This record gives sequence, C-alpha cells and structure tokens, in this order.
Amino acid sequence: MVRHAMTATQDRPLIRLLPGRDRRVKGGHPWAFSNEIAMTPATKALPPGSVVRLEGDDGVKHGAWHFNPHSLIAARRLDPDPAAPCDGAWYRARLAEALALRDRLFDRPQYRLIHAEADGLPGLVVDRYGDVVALQANTAGMDAATPMIVEALTALIAPRGIVARNDAGVRALEGLQEEVRLLAGDAAGATVEENGLRFPVDLLGGQKTGWFFDQREHRARVARLATGAAVLDAFCHTGGFGIGCAVAGATRVTLLDRSEHALATAKEAAAMNGVADRVTTQRGEAMETLERMLGAGQRFGVVITDPPAFAKTRKDQPAALRAYGKLARIAAGLVERGGFLFIASCSHHVAPGEFADAVAWGVHRARREARILHMGGAGPDHPLHPMLPESQYLKGMLLHLP
Amino acid sequence: MVRHAMTATQDRPLIRLLPGRDRRVKGGHPWAFSNEIAMTPATKALPPGSVVRLEGDDGVKHGAWHFNPHSLIAARRLDPDPAAPCDGAWYRARLAEALALRDRLFDRPQYRLIHAEADGLPGLVVDRYGDVVALQANTAGMDAATPMIVEALTALIAPRGIVARNDAGVRALEGLQEEVRLLAGDAAGATVEENGLRFPVDLLGGQKTGWFFDQREHRARVARLATGAAVLDAFCHTGGFGIGCAVAGATRVTLLDRSEHALATAKEAAAMNGVADRVTTQRGEAMETLERMLGAGQRFGVVITDPPAFAKTRKDQPAALRAYGKLARIAAGLVERGGFLFIASCSHHVAPGEFADAVAWGVHRARREARILHMGGAGPDHPLHPMLPESQYLKGMLLHLP
Repeated sequence: MVRHAMTATQDRPLIRLLPGRDRRVKGGHPWAFSNEIAMTPATKALPPGSVVRLEGDDGVKHGAWHFNPHSLIAARRLDPDPAAPCDGAWYRARLAEALALRDRLFDRPQYRLIHAEADGLPGLVVDRYGDVVALQANTAGMDAATPMIVEALTALIAPRGIVARNDAGVRALEGLQEEVRLLAGDAAGATVEENGLRFPVDLLGGQKTGWFFDQREHRARVARLATGAAVLDAFCHTGGFGIGCAVAGATRVTLLDRSEHALATAKEAAAMNGVADRVTTQRGEAMETLERMLGAGQRFGVVITDPPAFAKTRKDQPAALRAYGKLARIAAGLVERGGFLFIASCSHHVAPGEFADAVAWGVHRARREARILHMGGAGPDHPLHPMLPESQYLKGMLLHLP
Repeated sequence: MVRHAMTATQDRPLIRLLPGRDRRVKGGHPWAFSNEIAMTPATKALPPGSVVRLEGDDGVKHGAWHFNPHSLIAARRLDPDPAAPCDGAWYRARLAEALALRDRLFDRPQYRLIHAEADGLPGLVVDRYGDVVALQANTAGMDAATPMIVEALTALIAPRGIVARNDAGVRALEGLQEEVRLLAGDAAGATVEENGLRFPVDLLGGQKTGWFFDQREHRARVARLATGAAVLDAFCHTGGFGIGCAVAGATRVTLLDRSEHALATAKEAAAMNGVADRVTTQRGEAMETLERMLGAGQRFGVVITDPPAFAKTRKDQPAALRAYGKLARIAAGLVERGGFLFIASCSHHVAPGEFADAVAWGVHRARREARILHMGGAGPDHPLHPMLPESQYLKGMLLHLP
C-alpha cells in the first residue's frame, strides 16, 4: 500500500493544466490526462496518490484531485472545492450519500455501494453483501485512502468483515500490486441475496468481488421467461442466471463453466435454493462446448451466454467483435423455435452499437429471424458519471427467436 | 385506402435489385431503397402496396416484399419465401406468433401487439387495450392489407372494437391520406391498464394511438422513487408518469401539458385511481412554464420530462440537441438536492449517445453533480429488428442529483 504524509489543505501541492488543455475539465470531466498537465520536476516528484489542487493555466481553480504522475489518467477529481479536507469525515459523507441512495433503490443491503467516479470516489469500488463488504482500490489515491475508507464503513454500517479484493489488472497501471486480503473482521460464510435467491460468495477466493451485481435486472428479466423451459447457462460463474431460471420454473438447467471452483459454488447455490434436482453442471471451455452441443443437435428454450470480456484492450476489439459474432451464431443455433437468447458483453472496448451489430450478424448467420426485446446496461447500483458515458461497460441483449 | 387486385403467387410481379446493390439485403436487412432497385417502366407502374418477388441481379431469390415505387424505402420484406401466400391466413399466423410472445411477457392483454418490422409486419403497428384495438398502417402495403388484418384480429382475439389511427405523418411518404376511423365494432369507454393503474384512452380523439406503451417500464422505475416526494410531470400527456407517482405515495403531483384535452383525461385518470386530491394540472407550454417555475424557486423531489420529438427530420437534429440540453438544464435546476430527474427523447434522429451528451451538458450548466442510474429504451412489446437498431427511437435517462 502506498502511503503519503497527510498535509493541511493550505499546504496541498498545486498542479497546473497546460495552456489550452483545460476545455474538458472546465466542461465538468472528472479526469485530467498526463499530457494535459504541466509536468514540472516538482509535479513529477509527487508521491502517487497525493491529494493536490488543480488549476488551469488561467488561474481557474478546479478543486481537489487525486494525482499519480505515473498514470495516463494522471488526476481524478475528488471535490470541486480545492480546500475540501478529503479526510475521514469527507469519505464518510460520500459513503453516507451513496448508502442513502442504495437504501432507496433496494429493499435489502445487497448492492454495489460505491461505483467509482459516479459515486464521487474515483477508482474505488465497494460491494456490500449484507454484513460483509468487499472493496477494490484501483488508484494509488484510493489505495492510500483505504484506512480512512475502512474506518468510515465501520462507522456507517459496522460490517462483520471487510475484504480488499485488490486483484484487478488495472492496479498495474497505477503501479500497485495485486492483493486479496482481509482488512477487518471475518468474511467466512458470506452470502448474497438477489431477486429472492441466495448464493454463497467466496470473497477471499472467487472471481472479482465474488458476485456480479451488475446483472441483477437482467437475471430477473430472463428468469421470467424460463418457466417450463430447458435452460442453458454458459459462462455461468456461480449460476446467477441459471439458478434464477430453475427457481422460476425451468424444467432443467445446464450450467457450463471452465472453473471447477465456480461450478462447486453453483452446486451449493442450487441446493441452497431448493433446485438441485433440476440443475446439472458441466465443466468445459464454453465456446467449444457450445459448438459441440450445437453439432449434437441439443436445443434449449432459453440460452444465456455471459462471457468474460473478449476485448481486454482497444487493439483486441476487432477480434472480440468476431468472437461475439461467433458466440451469437452458435448460441442462436442452440435456441429452439420460439425460444430466447440472452447474450452479454462486459468489454469496455466494445461499444453498444458494435456489439448489437456483431450479435445481429451472428443470428443472421445462424439463419434465424429474431426480435430484440431488450438492450440494457448494468443496474442502478452501477451508476454512470454523465461525462463518462463510455464507462457503461455492460451490454445485455435479450432476443426472441421465432 | 389503396386497393390492388389479388394475384396468385406464381403471377406475383418480379422486381430486381441493381447489380452490386444487394449486399444489405443479402445480409438480412428487411428494406430495399428505391435507388437499389431496377426501376423499369413495368416496375414503376406497379400499384403502391403490391406484393412482389424480389431477386438480385445474380438471380438469388430474396422472398416476398411489399413494394411502393413512389417511396424512398421502396420495398419491405414480408417473407423469405417468394411464394409465401401473404393472405389472410398468413397475416393470422404472424399475429398469432406476436400474440403468443406478448402473452408470455405480460399478465394482462394491454400492450403493443405488433411493432412493425420486428414483428414481421413492416409498417404495421397494433396496440391492444384489452378488448379494443388500435392499428396504424404506415405503408401502402399494410394499408391495402388492412381488411385481412382486421379479419385476422377478429379471428384471434374477437375485439369489441378496432380503430384505424392512420394519422401518422409518415403516411404522406407513402402517398396515403391521414384518417382516424372506426373499422369495426365500438371503441367507446376504452381504458388501458398498466403497472396496476387504469387510464381512459380516447382512441378516436387523443394523441397518436391514445397511450404510449413504450414508457411502461420507465413509469414503474420512476414511481418507485416517488414515495414521499413532490413530483413535477412535464409534457405529461394523460399523466402516465405523474399519476403512477401519486399512487406510489408522492405527496403532491403537478401535471403540466399544453393540451386541454390531455389534461382533462389526466384529471379523469387521477380520480379513477383515487389520487385526485394529490394531483393538480397546469396548462401551458412546458419549456416556458418550467423556466418560470425555476425562476420562482419551485423545487421538486422528482422531475419528469417526456417531450414530443424535438427532431422531426435529420436537419432538425442540431437544434433538437440544443433544445434537449436546455430542457435538461432547466429541469435539473428544478430538482431539489438528493432528488431525481427522468428525461426522455423519442426523436428518431437523435442517437442515444448524442442525447446523453446533451443531457450531461445541461446538467453541468445547471451546476449540478449527477449520477446516471438508468439509460434505456422502449419496453419489450416494442421489439427491434436486429438489422434496424436505429429504430430504437426512445431514449430514457434517470438521474440522481445529490
């Protein structure tokens, strides 16, 4: 963890935007890129994660920011007030506001509590599973602020346990190590509740933060169509979609994933929700297995494919679009006449329109007519900053295939 | 109504795509433009609305299409089979399939039953209000087919009344007159049920087809946030959003519209749903009235603005974006701290990203921070054809303003 000395706000370092490079920041954008900032020797020497004041070349004050001289996104706005304390009380106020919003949106304390920039805490992600909390600090600034965040969370919701899930690849861009560890209390036996179901979450061992809250609304939407259907849930992780379908009355559900660990958790979840008799798991590489199933003439009333990001970087985008098209082609072929296909992409580097075109191409290649019933993003506990609409990474499409 | 003689499918006229202009149609697109078709004298002389066979210059058969030599969208695909009968039984099969899907999606027979191309019936819109049905035939082909469609609807759902709401401006592009008339039975006293509420619909007198089913999910989403809030519903039409908020527990609801007729219906709806005491109507031009309210310091916990299309044509688009930005600025200013703004656009000629940018600009100009909680389109009874993603005309954004 990067540490830096606390400084009184009047001693806070000042960094400046280059002449003529202030248009975006003036327009309300919460980031400044390294090539927009005057990189003086003093600026370059600031410890990563410093809280700084940012001003334009014209002397206009743009507030208090987190700064990392080694990152492309060099500065991220914390507060429009350059003298904002950015101390424990300040973090507590931001968390309290995000908490009040979630408690208005959801009946139960099961949600993404902090979604980075859109919740005024750039680079920070906090997921809440009732009395257990998982956080990701994806910038040097938030990494340094973690003790204050843990204290503020404790004051507000007194969690039984707080886990740092600092294993996102983006930490490398900020010069941070990956680490997963318990920050406070105890996280054993954590569960998540969603749409009336319960799933175990392995916060110290599972993928990402243990559960993908972003698909909550899509899971409910798909489950409503699964009554009486045979369901295939590919790239199933711990079975969020498929087990929801089983509880909603699917006749049988096949869960497919490459991870033994995810499938073991999914089995546990099926038992926990009383549908173990209708749920089977199959381990394998999803794309190859789907292709084999298609060749073998298997068909399903509902097919779900929610793969990991195919485009990790911008240069992967063309290959990713081909892969989404191929996935759509195979998955559409597995849908029986009159059935439904749900297909998602969580690739930041694939735009919604590009994804929709790739899916349309694949469905056409499968020689299927189709209606798009729904195209949508993550749920409301994953808000977007208005100046960062491109941060809507999740794209879900629900299609009816007559 | 344009009429043309029924022809046996073997006598069906043949039209051809121009050399090298078949790429889109081969890719599954359901339209052919007039500049893609070999406009021979015989082709030009075909009656608007004829059912034709379409082939490529290479002899590839592209199925049975509706054709109008005077329209820019000259041909619209009916069936991949060039010999498909396109008779009463064929229309009945298409309607039955769309009906089966809706009855799977909704508990009650209140929905858009046919949404044109995506439901395999290009240019046709059918809305169902229980036992009363309203249809719009927006092409010469569907206008000519109306008697078969009425017969098929009668066979399938035996409506008490069927109304032609043929007053959409797009009919002029097909050389059709605007007309609103009763096609069968009786449409008096029709009502729509949505999200547990009931509204009167005036199918022979009101706007468009009497009710905008496309906002069903957005209305439910906004109402859930309205408990205990003062609500302003601008461009309210017959009060779908605002009355839903009142029933969900809003303390008071102000409905604003320019149409006396719409407001009278809204008042009736408020009484019908038992919330007349908390709902007031105000007649006026919405933009000007909102600006006056802002100046007078009025504030609301929830503000809804669902205006008619600002961009009727492509050339209106820049002015429309300015207007959406201005509307967002004023509406955001009317939201109290911690409140919510829902803003929508139904302009075909404004893309989702452009609309989101205009709203972001307006909110920033209002000096408000904001979280986008939801961006979405029309509900699943308004499906999209995969090759016509641009037909997603509706864009709704829900924002939280701390």
